[in-house]
Amino acid sequence: MSDDAARWRERFAAAPVARMATITPAGRPHVVPVTCAVSGDTIYWAVDHKPKRSRRLARLANLAANPAVAMVADHYEEDWSRLWWVRADGTGREVTDPAERARALAALAAAHPQYADRPPEGPVVAVDVERWSGWEAAR
Amino acid sequence: MSDDAARWRERFAAAPVARMATITPAGRPHVVPVTCAVSGDTIYWAVDHKPKRSRRLARLANLAANPAVAMVADHYEEDWSRLWWVRADGTGREVTDPAERARALAALAAAHPQYADRPPEGPVVAVDVERWSGWEAAR
Repeated sequence: MSDDAARWRERFAAAPVARMATITPAGRPHVVPVTCAVSGDTIYWAVDHKPKRSRRLARLANLAANPAVAMVADHYEEDWSRLWWVRADGTGREVTDPAERARALAALAAAHPQYADRPPEGPVVAVDVERWSGWEAAR
Repeated sequence: MSDDAARWRERFAAAPVARMATITPAGRPHVVPVTCAVSGDTIYWAVDHKPKRSRRLARLANLAANPAVAMVADHYEEDWSRLWWVRADGTGREVTDPAERARALAALAAAHPQYADRPPEGPVVAVDVERWSGWEAAR
């Protein structure tokens, strides 16, 4: 991994929220925010307890039909010379191995105290990242 | 327009940044943050003065090959009972009419004081929104 990629990955991992783009079965782009955790070159997120579960599961249907994923984490503030974003391009898969699920839930709880209090009960998704890239205004 | 759609549109318009998902010519999802302005059911954003212009223009190449766009604006805070997001699904096009470009730049300057000081000089893109939808944790 290049120094650049490692630096982008570190920034992505520190962001509290990212946005995940997938492609719908009808071939349209889809995008939704997710709270996630980074473990090596894998990003984990999980379906938790929020209402309107049926609507959120659209992202799982998209991944089942087309596993290609792009995620972005970014920093916004009024001083636009301080903007940056990091993109992770990869492949998504639902985690079925119980040991990996346990590791993913531990990573999510470590990244988000909200999950420590109330672990996600829904499916866990892994995005295996093939490329970390980014941009910053001041560079 | 339903009351719900109007409410989601209002929230989207008030967000300082959104993320735009498109599909690359190779058929992969792509996502990038954009600062934009909402005028009726059209979202405008522009290419400005930032460095690494060539990289940012990937989003224009995507739209030229496939105009389908999904954008999301969201609110994050540590209290997850206050999370929300709004998604806009629509069709992107580069603005070529000078009068529309002038209106778009005025809308961008009204939404972002940063643009009033330094108007964008690059291409302006319009996303004509066909559907506003959203989710909020507390609802």
